[in-house]
Amino acid sequence: MAIRTPQEYVESLKDDRVVYYLGERVKDVTQHPILRICIDWMAMDYVVENDPRYQDLVTEKNEKGELVPFVFMPQTNAKDLLRLREVVQLWARICFGKPPGAKFVGKDGLNALTVVTPRIDKQFGTNYAEHIEEYRKYLEKTDPTVALGMTDVKGDRSLRPSKQQPHQDYYVRIVDEDSDGIVVRGAKMHISQSPLSNEILVLPCRAMREEDKDYAVAFAVPANAKGITYISSEPEIKEPGNFFDYPLSASIYLDDALIVFDDVFVPNERVFMKKEWPFAGDMAYMFGNFHRLSAETYKAVELELLTGAAALMAEYNGIERAPHIREGLTWLTMYTETVEILGRAACEHCVSEPDSDLVYPDPMYANIAKFFFADNWHQATKYIQDIAGGIVATVPSSKDFFNPETHDMIEKYLGGKDGIPTEHRLRLIKLIKDLTSSYEDVLTLHAEGSLAAQRLSIYTLADFERYKAAAKRAARIKDGTEHPLFSQLPDFPPKI
Amino acid sequence: MAIRTPQEYVESLKDDRVVYYLGERVKDVTQHPILRICIDWMAMDYVVENDPRYQDLVTEKNEKGELVPFVFMPQTNAKDLLRLREVVQLWARICFGKPPGAKFVGKDGLNALTVVTPRIDKQFGTNYAEHIEEYRKYLEKTDPTVALGMTDVKGDRSLRPSKQQPHQDYYVRIVDEDSDGIVVRGAKMHISQSPLSNEILVLPCRAMREEDKDYAVAFAVPANAKGITYISSEPEIKEPGNFFDYPLSASIYLDDALIVFDDVFVPNERVFMKKEWPFAGDMAYMFGNFHRLSAETYKAVELELLTGAAALMAEYNGIERAPHIREGLTWLTMYTETVEILGRAACEHCVSEPDSDLVYPDPMYANIAKFFFADNWHQATKYIQDIAGGIVATVPSSKDFFNPETHDMIEKYLGGKDGIPTEHRLRLIKLIKDLTSSYEDVLTLHAEGSLAAQRLSIYTLADFERYKAAAKRAARIKDGTEHPLFSQLPDFPPKI
Amino acid sequence: MAIRTPQEYVESLKDDRVVYYLGERVKDVTQHPILRICIDWMAMDYVVENDPRYQDLVTEKNEKGELVPFVFMPQTNAKDLLRLREVVQLWARICFGKPPGAKFVGKDGLNALTVVTPRIDKQFGTNYAEHIEEYRKYLEKTDPTVALGMTDVKGDRSLRPSKQQPHQDYYVRIVDEDSDGIVVRGAKMHISQSPLSNEILVLPCRAMREEDKDYAVAFAVPANAKGITYISSEPEIKEPGNFFDYPLSASIYLDDALIVFDDVFVPNERVFMKKEWPFAGDMAYMFGNFHRLSAETYKAVELELLTGAAALMAEYNGIERAPHIREGLTWLTMYTETVEILGRAACEHCVSEPDSDLVYPDPMYANIAKFFFADNWHQATKYIQDIAGGIVATVPSSKDFFNPETHDMIEKYLGGKDGIPTEHRLRLIKLIKDLTSSYEDVLTLHAEGSLAAQRLSIYTLADFERYKAAAKRAARIKDGTEHPLFSQLPDFPPKI
Amino acid sequence: MAIRTPQEYVESLKDDRVVYYLGERVKDVTQHPILRICIDWMAMDYVVENDPRYQDLVTEKNEKGELVPFVFMPQTNAKDLLRLREVVQLWARICFGKPPGAKFVGKDGLNALTVVTPRIDKQFGTNYAEHIEEYRKYLEKTDPTVALGMTDVKGDRSLRPSKQQPHQDYYVRIVDEDSDGIVVRGAKMHISQSPLSNEILVLPCRAMREEDKDYAVAFAVPANAKGITYISSEPEIKEPGNFFDYPLSASIYLDDALIVFDDVFVPNERVFMKKEWPFAGDMAYMFGNFHRLSAETYKAVELELLTGAAALMAEYNGIERAPHIREGLTWLTMYTETVEILGRAACEHCVSEPDSDLVYPDPMYANIAKFFFADNWHQATKYIQDIAGGIVATVPSSKDFFNPETHDMIEKYLGGKDGIPTEHRLRLIKLIKDLTSSYEDVLTLHAEGSLAAQRLSIYTLADFERYKAAAKRAARIKDGTEHPLFSQLPDFPPKI
Repeated sequence: MAIRTPQEYVESLKDDRVVYYLGERVKDVTQHPILRICIDWMAMDYVVENDPRYQDLVTEKNEKGELVPFVFMPQTNAKDLLRLREVVQLWARICFGKPPGAKFVGKDGLNALTVVTPRIDKQFGTNYAEHIEEYRKYLEKTDPTVALGMTDVKGDRSLRPSKQQPHQDYYVRIVDEDSDGIVVRGAKMHISQSPLSNEILVLPCRAMREEDKDYAVAFAVPANAKGITYISSEPEIKEPGNFFDYPLSASIYLDDALIVFDDVFVPNERVFMKKEWPFAGDMAYMFGNFHRLSAETYKAVELELLTGAAALMAEYNGIERAPHIREGLTWLTMYTETVEILGRAACEHCVSEPDSDLVYPDPMYANIAKFFFADNWHQATKYIQDIAGGIVATVPSSKDFFNPETHDMIEKYLGGKDGIPTEHRLRLIKLIKDLTSSYEDVLTLHAEGSLAAQRLSIYTLADFERYKAAAKRAARIKDGTEHPLFSQLPDFPPKI
Repeated sequence: MAIRTPQEYVESLKDDRVVYYLGERVKDVTQHPILRICIDWMAMDYVVENDPRYQDLVTEKNEKGELVPFVFMPQTNAKDLLRLREVVQLWARICFGKPPGAKFVGKDGLNALTVVTPRIDKQFGTNYAEHIEEYRKYLEKTDPTVALGMTDVKGDRSLRPSKQQPHQDYYVRIVDEDSDGIVVRGAKMHISQSPLSNEILVLPCRAMREEDKDYAVAFAVPANAKGITYISSEPEIKEPGNFFDYPLSASIYLDDALIVFDDVFVPNERVFMKKEWPFAGDMAYMFGNFHRLSAETYKAVELELLTGAAALMAEYNGIERAPHIREGLTWLTMYTETVEILGRAACEHCVSEPDSDLVYPDPMYANIAKFFFADNWHQATKYIQDIAGGIVATVPSSKDFFNPETHDMIEKYLGGKDGIPTEHRLRLIKLIKDLTSSYEDVLTLHAEGSLAAQRLSIYTLADFERYKAAAKRAARIKDGTEHPLFSQLPDFPPKI
Repeated sequence: MAIRTPQEYVESLKDDRVVYYLGERVKDVTQHPILRICIDWMAMDYVVENDPRYQDLVTEKNEKGELVPFVFMPQTNAKDLLRLREVVQLWARICFGKPPGAKFVGKDGLNALTVVTPRIDKQFGTNYAEHIEEYRKYLEKTDPTVALGMTDVKGDRSLRPSKQQPHQDYYVRIVDEDSDGIVVRGAKMHISQSPLSNEILVLPCRAMREEDKDYAVAFAVPANAKGITYISSEPEIKEPGNFFDYPLSASIYLDDALIVFDDVFVPNERVFMKKEWPFAGDMAYMFGNFHRLSAETYKAVELELLTGAAALMAEYNGIERAPHIREGLTWLTMYTETVEILGRAACEHCVSEPDSDLVYPDPMYANIAKFFFADNWHQATKYIQDIAGGIVATVPSSKDFFNPETHDMIEKYLGGKDGIPTEHRLRLIKLIKDLTSSYEDVLTLHAEGSLAAQRLSIYTLADFERYKAAAKRAARIKDGTEHPLFSQLPDFPPKI
Repeated sequence: MAIRTPQEYVESLKDDRVVYYLGERVKDVTQHPILRICIDWMAMDYVVENDPRYQDLVTEKNEKGELVPFVFMPQTNAKDLLRLREVVQLWARICFGKPPGAKFVGKDGLNALTVVTPRIDKQFGTNYAEHIEEYRKYLEKTDPTVALGMTDVKGDRSLRPSKQQPHQDYYVRIVDEDSDGIVVRGAKMHISQSPLSNEILVLPCRAMREEDKDYAVAFAVPANAKGITYISSEPEIKEPGNFFDYPLSASIYLDDALIVFDDVFVPNERVFMKKEWPFAGDMAYMFGNFHRLSAETYKAVELELLTGAAALMAEYNGIERAPHIREGLTWLTMYTETVEILGRAACEHCVSEPDSDLVYPDPMYANIAKFFFADNWHQATKYIQDIAGGIVATVPSSKDFFNPETHDMIEKYLGGKDGIPTEHRLRLIKLIKDLTSSYEDVLTLHAEGSLAAQRLSIYTLADFERYKAAAKRAARIKDGTEHPLFSQLPDFPPKI
């Protein structure tokens, strides 16, 4: 099979998967008006794959000459990472800032496993790298959507997986194994698009100690595997199909579901880590490198949209020359462009995995990029809300605008600058409301790990020895330490 | 008639007012499931008035010995303002941070008119102060709900009311007058609770020049006056009665409507300004003094709730000892307590109106208080979202929690710290979602005027002469200017 | 003896104290050109006491009818605290923002001891309150300057006083005692004005555990007591008497010295705590309440000066109407006025000590006030430096301005707005340079405790039970807890 | 002549230039103890040029096979810009964060002229590009130090050069011309290192209108040209040679002097713009592109030093594990690395000048880089001062440390963590004091243009059409506008 069509993807979801939404079991997810929003959005991945204008970018020929998705291939140089970036930005630009979740997170898990499994094999004599390679072939051949199960539900966050918790299943773990495979139990939360995916790829979400070794597990299962239940998140959307009042939330639904694994069997060939606890942290960390960058990549496009909405609103309100508005637009521009350049730099300055032809994004830049966009998001929403005015909170429904009894009043009174149709102004206001929802706030802060997670990475990656050597040299502190960048420099001030 | 009962208030709304909501004319607002949320919230005002525990605080006896609402009485000293503060904070504490809108904004308009109309009368020989006094008596006697129409729809914000705008009705104006009264046209937007009010009090929203004098108008009309149409704002609420998933948004709906005045007649005795343009700014400014303080007053109570939600969430997640969480809670506490003290100070250090027994809140402190809470709000939501985690965006519906098929899974996996029922954790997550909505963001920024409005007030009020005198003395700049606080101080350094 | 004259104070310093400055023993501090700057500044306290215009404010009659300094008297109500505030602000206004250090810190130590010693006496049966009372009488009679030794040198900050440190003297401790008194050893650092004081009052700087009990010690000694050595800090000043180039740093020198106690004997009647370790924290904390307020009190006056310098500079440069400059001035005004009101509120809402007629400043507001001014200081310097321009870094010396060869060039080219003498502009630039020194930065951050110290106090003082009760009520969490403010409120929404 | 030696540079300064310092004419700048600090620092440029380890980097062979400074050559691709970056970072790393000013600013002026003069020639038929080329040959041959006169003294900043100002010389202008050249009058301020340079290159500092055309002038003159007077800025330094107490300020003195041009003659071949007013703005702007990048380039190295000082101080104080300290160090790391990557990106993504083989740094990134480091500097100093503690303000002089009478006390009491010599801790404290001076604050904010200047550039460069197209597409606003990036995208949501 070559790349799939959107229709094939939709059909593939009729597989008796166990999905709950707002208190009810959904028999056929493809017929559900809300879940269908998520499906249609994910299907854009296949629309793009089948669009001749984009095939050179988003697909590659495999050895058999079949078109396969580029994003399932291993990354071996900066050019690959930059192309990946281009793919994600195309996806995002088409879908109003949010790349369809078909393979968006799954590819990052695949990349992390590709880098880390050889490390495990080397130390433990396992053969996970082969498993991954087989799995990759399977993905290339079948072109499925792949969700990524990362975040465990955690229970009491101050306690470790194996200890003291009210029960032992707050992190996904191996509860049984035999010669054919393992049995896993637990739950992963806010797993975007999982109820509408074909494959579920699961990684550990943190470093583990020896006593936690049952929790050091990575694997893949089909989405309809026996024992899996999905409980969908409640979406922002209020009314499917109403793209006037809900331009984003009626177009995009991430369905960040809770996945419960109730003693699910995983065959050996889909197991990528089994109790090799020293590498659990590596996996979580390597996934972070790829995924923080992916997030930053689409965020730069989403910010283009946000900044555009602010600029347009300023214009529609006739305040585009007011100094504090210009300051806001300038700030938003800097924010947008800095996010773009930080992520691009993480690709351009990628790191080579030793004894391997693989690369991964520069971890320092990938983490800074994520931190930077998340840390400044609330300031950005403040600027755009400041520019847009109170009407974002108090705007009437488009139903009132289209009601002939009230249309003329709204047309007359909610207009802005001369020449701008009131309808355009109303549509833009609705867009801004959707862009600055609490959902967006939380997604921006927490997806790909909290601010604290990036802080920890950055602290760990910091080259303090270099920094301290600079300080010691300037302060004339001679304590016997040496640093290659500083130890051979000429004296300063000079003797002349 | 003495104070009204909640039932009387509800009945009073069956008066053929013209209200639209989501594209339909609402025949009887009291029977509408969504508008009823706003009505019930407003009715709390009457519940409190009729509760013997609170009557000493919220009511006064008039000269006839009838109980009348305290908030309709003029403010003559700091004690009055502090009592007003206590009333608002009681209201807010009962209603989850949002004081019922029955008289909440109306009283601020009444107070502003009480201070400013004598100034107009003095200069123009008018008798508006009598009109206000009569109106006050009427309000005391009938105990109605009073909405306040302040914000004009404005059109192109860079243009003045009378000039260049695409049409002349972007600000409410007098289009006709005769010996009995005036006829007004225009629209006011985001007028909270107006479709569910009994009285509409209208003030100009900005300073006017002579060419704008038709726009210098203040008046009161009954809510069902001929020619008035209300178009309700679209609420946050998704499901009336579902207090689990929407603890705030199913309890409180502000209905910040658009009011259209289509040539509405106002009898002379309800006109409080008619083309006396030099005082339009005074009115807007004085309303700002009272209303920014009112907002700050309830905000301190709302922040108590926000900070409490953060503290509770930290506890439920088991992270209350994590340093960055403690830092967040400390910041939220400072924010909460600073807002409280800034507003209290505006009352304690109130300003006396010359030749009058009236006072008004200290404008500098009232403006700083408003600016401070609005300017820091997005930081506060960032802290609470950071503490609460991604689950705020991805939590399933309570319907899944109460569905027997999924209940046990959610019970097991979405629990937090040992001993905390999962239900409590879920309820708290829903509260945080409601607390950090885009609606709350925009309301906090823009209600009572944008940040730019407070900045302008503060700049205007700043005692730069005192500040500059201090700098000149320290820099030994002698330029012939004198300032009483500095000109007589002993020399420094001394000669000893 | 009644209040002293400035001359008497100067003479009192000729007492063979052991003071080092820039590597040399200073024989007579009154003759030292740099130390004299500090002396003259401190002498302003006596100038003011002897100025009839201020005597009603700064002095009181004792029972013998003698004038005694008001600041040495106990504080028994809000009025006292507000008067204290007025005294400090007068001092600060005279001395370019920095109150003379004669009694400024000492009074806060005295107040803290006055509140805490009765608590110790009550639990331990000691008689420290009598000691303090006697000491107070002594101070009233002799009108000395009193420095306050608070901060220990600490060594490794991560270790407790009594344990693991490289030596045992990193905190001041009792090394011996007999029936007449105790012997103390250790050092206190950055003790402002101590080398030019008459009395040294010493308090513990932190809570102690039982094993640290030798470090739980408070006492007073004369500044020239045997065994005391002062090592002066290096001042900012470059040239005494050059008030043009150094308007602040040539007028004020805090001399934050290191005091070394090399086995100093303290007679019993001057000991105020001797190993009663459970109260060491109380003392440090109560001193913090008084002293953070004192700091905030003068800071409000210093900010008046800073904001004035910014406003004047904007004017001199002709940019006072530029929007971003106005924004800066508005921010500085808010900063200045918020600091003022936060401190005033700490007095107005003071706390009564149980079983006592004493009061102390509201700890929450005092801490918030300190935190607020320190946390925002760097932003304030950024604003003023932004307004002032690069010339603050590159301005030539006044010596060039007064050199006839270069005067005309500077006069011509470094002028600003028409009508402003170049000399005035230069003087102002120099003032801004002094105001934004690294010294000011660090003083603002660290004097009265670091930001972390205030954060800890605020966290400890936060009324989380109230906050959490508000959140539980809104989220409908019923867990059996009750809170008086919330448990009796009417139901919301109501049933009507 | 090939590259010069440090000695040759020093000798070259004995040329009767007219330099004033602290009120006195300096006869021989090479003998002046303070100016000599600046000279020695600048001489490091020649030390490096003559060091075989660095010659491959900092020099190139010209057509005659002579070594010439690389920084005087034109930039034709990203590699050139990255090499320039490497040169600046080497200089900065040697000199404690501040690249010696020998050619540091001059090269940016040269680069700007190289790009802009062909534009002028093309429009006006002039031959300035040839002048520049000749000048470049001269510079390559003689290897002088070149200062750059950019900032005019400006007078009233709200007025244009030619109008209303108290006099007409607030901006440098042409006052006379003949067939041999022009005569210029005016002054440039904060011109770093100019009194110790060989060449002075002058550019206009802003866009000009036709009425300002006499002010549209660019030229080069020898530093000792008749009519030039330098008035040195007052340095931070207190004591030459004392590297313990003043590790930076005794090593580096920028001497940001005022240069007065009192009718200075410039021969035609050194004139690079003469009244071609439409290009004045281009020059200022192009200089900004190069110089903001240069500044960012060394700043990344200076921040390495700042962050290192913070990390080392945390360690010396034993608080390196305290959470708020780690947060500070993490923030400083992000700040340092983000500045590095932003500047590097401006080189990697450089812009090609049309019809030319020249490139210049990406203006958006160069401006963001400058804004980012300047805007965050005060926060950085706050973090390091917070980490370092109050001792930065109160530390005694090294003279007390080396005085045998007090050495042991200081040794004992001002130690930190066990194993760290007190001397090292003291040296580090002094370094931090120097790093966080008011001078550094102002330099960071204002050198290369104020924050407002970068804001304006960024606003002007922002691709608002792209941003707005994104918003319109998401909001379904169809107004007939098209944008290539968006107009051809597939529909979203798709029809499947």
